[in-house]
Amino acid sequence: MTSSPRCSAAAERGVSAQELAQQFDGEVIGAPERRGYRLAPLHRAGDGDIVFVANERHRAQLVHSAAGIVLLPADLGPIEDRVADRCTQVRVANPHAAFAVLSARFSNRRHFAPGIDAGAWVHPQAVVDPSACVCAGARVGAGSQIAAEAYVGAGALVAERVRIGAGSYLSPGCVVLQDVVIGAAVLIQPGAVLGADGFGFAADAGEWIKVEHFGSVIVGDRVEIGANTTVDRGALDDTVIGEGVKIDNLVHVAHNVVIGAHTAIAGCVGIAGSARIGRHCAIGGGAGILGHLEIADHVTIHAMTLVTHSITQPGHYASGVPQQEARAWNRTLAALRRLGRRGIQ
Amino acid sequence: MTSSPRCSAAAERGVSAQELAQQFDGEVIGAPERRGYRLAPLHRAGDGDIVFVANERHRAQLVHSAAGIVLLPADLGPIEDRVADRCTQVRVANPHAAFAVLSARFSNRRHFAPGIDAGAWVHPQAVVDPSACVCAGARVGAGSQIAAEAYVGAGALVAERVRIGAGSYLSPGCVVLQDVVIGAAVLIQPGAVLGADGFGFAADAGEWIKVEHFGSVIVGDRVEIGANTTVDRGALDDTVIGEGVKIDNLVHVAHNVVIGAHTAIAGCVGIAGSARIGRHCAIGGGAGILGHLEIADHVTIHAMTLVTHSITQPGHYASGVPQQEARAWNRTLAALRRLGRRGIQ
Amino acid sequence: MTSSPRCSAAAERGVSAQELAQQFDGEVIGAPERRGYRLAPLHRAGDGDIVFVANERHRAQLVHSAAGIVLLPADLGPIEDRVADRCTQVRVANPHAAFAVLSARFSNRRHFAPGIDAGAWVHPQAVVDPSACVCAGARVGAGSQIAAEAYVGAGALVAERVRIGAGSYLSPGCVVLQDVVIGAAVLIQPGAVLGADGFGFAADAGEWIKVEHFGSVIVGDRVEIGANTTVDRGALDDTVIGEGVKIDNLVHVAHNVVIGAHTAIAGCVGIAGSARIGRHCAIGGGAGILGHLEIADHVTIHAMTLVTHSITQPGHYASGVPQQEARAWNRTLAALRRLGRRGIQ
Repeated sequence: MTSSPRCSAAAERGVSAQELAQQFDGEVIGAPERRGYRLAPLHRAGDGDIVFVANERHRAQLVHSAAGIVLLPADLGPIEDRVADRCTQVRVANPHAAFAVLSARFSNRRHFAPGIDAGAWVHPQAVVDPSACVCAGARVGAGSQIAAEAYVGAGALVAERVRIGAGSYLSPGCVVLQDVVIGAAVLIQPGAVLGADGFGFAADAGEWIKVEHFGSVIVGDRVEIGANTTVDRGALDDTVIGEGVKIDNLVHVAHNVVIGAHTAIAGCVGIAGSARIGRHCAIGGGAGILGHLEIADHVTIHAMTLVTHSITQPGHYASGVPQQEARAWNRTLAALRRLGRRGIQ
Repeated sequence: MTSSPRCSAAAERGVSAQELAQQFDGEVIGAPERRGYRLAPLHRAGDGDIVFVANERHRAQLVHSAAGIVLLPADLGPIEDRVADRCTQVRVANPHAAFAVLSARFSNRRHFAPGIDAGAWVHPQAVVDPSACVCAGARVGAGSQIAAEAYVGAGALVAERVRIGAGSYLSPGCVVLQDVVIGAAVLIQPGAVLGADGFGFAADAGEWIKVEHFGSVIVGDRVEIGANTTVDRGALDDTVIGEGVKIDNLVHVAHNVVIGAHTAIAGCVGIAGSARIGRHCAIGGGAGILGHLEIADHVTIHAMTLVTHSITQPGHYASGVPQQEARAWNRTLAALRRLGRRGIQ
Repeated sequence: MTSSPRCSAAAERGVSAQELAQQFDGEVIGAPERRGYRLAPLHRAGDGDIVFVANERHRAQLVHSAAGIVLLPADLGPIEDRVADRCTQVRVANPHAAFAVLSARFSNRRHFAPGIDAGAWVHPQAVVDPSACVCAGARVGAGSQIAAEAYVGAGALVAERVRIGAGSYLSPGCVVLQDVVIGAAVLIQPGAVLGADGFGFAADAGEWIKVEHFGSVIVGDRVEIGANTTVDRGALDDTVIGEGVKIDNLVHVAHNVVIGAHTAIAGCVGIAGSARIGRHCAIGGGAGILGHLEIADHVTIHAMTLVTHSITQPGHYASGVPQQEARAWNRTLAALRRLGRRGIQ
C-alpha cells in the first residue's frame, strides 16, 4: 500500500494568479505572478493561500483576510483599496465552482500506486485493470471488473459480478454487493452499502415471508454516496441512481427507487420503495419520502418534511416545524389538540 | 470462496404450472405443462416468466403483460379472454406469499460451498460446523459457534462467545459482538451492528461516566436485520428481538429494548432504551419511539410519528405532517404559533 | 488475538461493602464484609449481586429485590426493615455514578493482550505502542500513531497520519480516515466513520462539482462515538468534538460542526454543516439541526425537534408532536390546514 502524502504535487508547485485566470477564463487584477500553495478559508488565509468570495455578503469578510489570491465574481463591484493592495484578484464567472475545481487539483485523492496489495483477496475470475488499486483487506469477488484508475480502499468489499467504472473511488469499508453496476468517477464514502436486499415480505397468516431480490443497483457517472448510506437492490427491477446525483451520509434509499440526474440528497433522508424522484431536485436533511410516489424535476424539499403524496410541480415543499421554547411549544400542542377535537368554525 | 452463479439451478430447470399448483394447493387454468424460468414484474414479463397479481387493482396491469404463468387469488373473477389465451393461470389462496416462497427457490443465496476460507480468521476455540461457510476477511472469535449451513460473509466480524443458529446468513461487513445469540434462519444485512454498547452514562458534576454494558442481544429465529442498522446490547438485562421480526435499514434499537414476534420496522426508525414493542406491530419509516414505554400488540405507527407515551390499544397512530407547498406551510406555521400564543376560545 | 473472558478478574474476587464505602466516600449500614460479584438490576439480583437505587421512585422496587448490596443516596430515608435485614446498604452521594465507576471495574474491556496480530496490516511507517493491541483484519496506515494501551479492534480501518490517544478503544469495523486526531480514553463503537468527506459541492450549470475536503476531525478526550455514526471532516477548517462528548448511534455530524464539551447527543440526530453546539447540551433522538447556526451552552433539545435558528439562551426547546390515534390526528391535520388557509381572527 502506498503512503499518500497529505498535499498533492500541485500544492507543492503552487499555481499563479495568471494560470488561474487562464484556467477559469477570468481576469487578473493585481500581480499576475503571485502564487498560491493552499486553499484556505478567508479567516485564516495568509500570503500563499487562495480564497474565494461567492457573493456580496461573503465579501465583507475579505477585509479581514490576509489571503494572497482571491477568486471573485466577475460582476462584483471593486474591492477596498487596502484589500486590493495586498492581494491579487482573479475575477471569474463562478468563483465557488472554480474553487471546487481547484480543490481536486490540490487534493491527493488520485495519488495512489496502482496494483493489488498482497493483503487483498481478488478472485482469479475478477478483472482488475493494471492502473487500478486494490488495498489490503479489500475483497473483489468472481466475475467483478475494476476499471482503469479505480480505487478499492482498505477493507472495501466488492462481491460477485460487480462493475466499477473508470476512476471510481471506493473508500475503506464500503460494501458493494453482487451484480451492482457503478459508473465512472463515482465516489463511495466509507461504510456505504450498495445492493443489500430491499425490505420486501409477503404477509401470510400473521408472519412475514421474505421476498428474495433479483434486481440490482445501477449507479450513474459522477455520483457520490455518503458514509453509512444504504442503497438497496430492486426486487425484480433495478434501483437506479442517475448521473451526477449526490447523496449525503446515513440516507436510506429503498428498493426500486429511481433518482433523477443531478439531484442532491442531504443526510438522514429516508426514501421508501419504488419512489421516483426527478432530476435537479434538492432533498433537505431528515426528510422522509413515502413509497410508490413521484416527485417532479426541480423540486426542493425542506428539512424534516414528510412527503406523503406525489409532487407534480417544481417548487419548494415543507412540513418541518421550527423549534420553540418547550413551554411555548407545549401550549401550541395543547391548542392544536383542542383545535382537532372541535374543528374550527 | 465459491463463485455463486446469478441464477439458481431451480431457475435453470424451471417449474411447471402444474408443480406450482401442487406446491401451493392451487388450481391450474390453461396449459399445466407450461414452465416458468424466472420471476418477473408484470410490465416486462415474457413467455418463460412467472408473475403474480395480488388483487383486483393490481390485475389491470395483467392485460399488458406477456407473462407465461400468473399466480392469481383463487377468489378473483375470471380474467379477459385475450389474457387467458396466452398465459396459464395458477389460482392460489395467497399469490404474494406463493411468489415469496418461489423467490427463495429461484435465489442462489444458499448456493455456497461449505468451509473456512484461507483468508478468514477463525479462533482455534471457535466451533464452525463443517456445513457452514466462513468467507475471506471474516473473523470468528474464541468460544463462538457457527451452526450448520450458516454463512459468514466476507469481512463479517463475529466476536467472542457468539452463537449463530443453523442456516443463518451474515452478509459481508456486518458486526456481531461478544455474547450475542442469533437464532436459526436469521438474515443480517451488510453493515448491521449487533451488540454495541447502549448509550448509558451517569451524570456526575456536569460530566458523563460511562456505564459498561453486561447484557447481550438475543435474536429469535427467522429475524431479518437491515443494512447499517444497530441493535445495542442491554446494560444488565438483554435486548431481545422476537422471532420473525423484520427490521429495515438504518434503524436504531437501543439497549434493553424488547420487540415482540413478527413485528416489522421500516427504515430510519429510532427506538430508545427499554421500550417494549408488542407482537405483530408495524412501525413506519422515520418514526421515533421514546424509552421506557410500552406498545401493545397489533399496533401500527405511521411514518415519522413521535411516540412519547405508551399505547395500550391496537390500532393506528400518527403524528407525521404531510408536505405542503412551502409558502402555504409557512402560513400554517404562523397561524399555529398565533394559536399557541392565544389559545383558542 | 486474545480471548477475553466474559467477566473480569475484579468480578471473580468480588468487592466488599466496606471497600465500596471507602471508594465512594460512603457509609455502610449492615454487614460491611458482605461481597458483591456481579452488577445486577433490582428485579433479578441475588445474594452476590450489587444493585443501585437512584431515587425515591426507584426505591419502591427494592422491596422485591434479593440483592446482597445496594448503593443508595446518602439522603434517602431509611429503608424497610425486611429489606435492611437481608442486604447491606452503602450510602453514597451519587449511587448511579458509583455504579458506573464500578461497571468499569467489572468489565473486561481492558483485558486484552498487547501486540499486533499476525492478521493485521500495520504500515512500517506507523507507530504502535508496545502496550497497544491491533487485532486481525485491522489496518493502520502510514504515519499513524497508536498510543499506549489503545485497542484497535478486528477489521478496524485506520488510515494515514491518524493519531489515536492513550487508552482509546476502536471497536471492530470502525473507520478512521486520514489525519483524524483522536484524544485519550475515547471509545468508538463499531461501524462509526470518522473523517469521511463533508457534503460540499459547487453548483455549476445545473451540475455539482465536488469540493475536496482538507480539514480533519479532532476528537477530545473521553469522547464516545456510537455505532454507525458518521463524523465528517471539515472542508478547510476541522470538525471538532469537545472532550467528554457522548454521541449515540446513527448520528450524522456534518463538516465543520463544533460540539462543546460534555454535550450528549441521542440516536438518529442529524447536524448540518458548520453548526456550533454549546457545552453541556443534550440533544434528543431524531432531532435535526440546520447548518450555520449556534446553540448556547446548557440547552436541551427534545426528541425529533427541528432546530432552524440559533438558540442563545439555555433551556428546553421542542417541536416534536406526540402521537395520536390516527383518525384523531387526521382531524387535527385537517383543522390545521384550514387554519393555515384562513389564518385565525
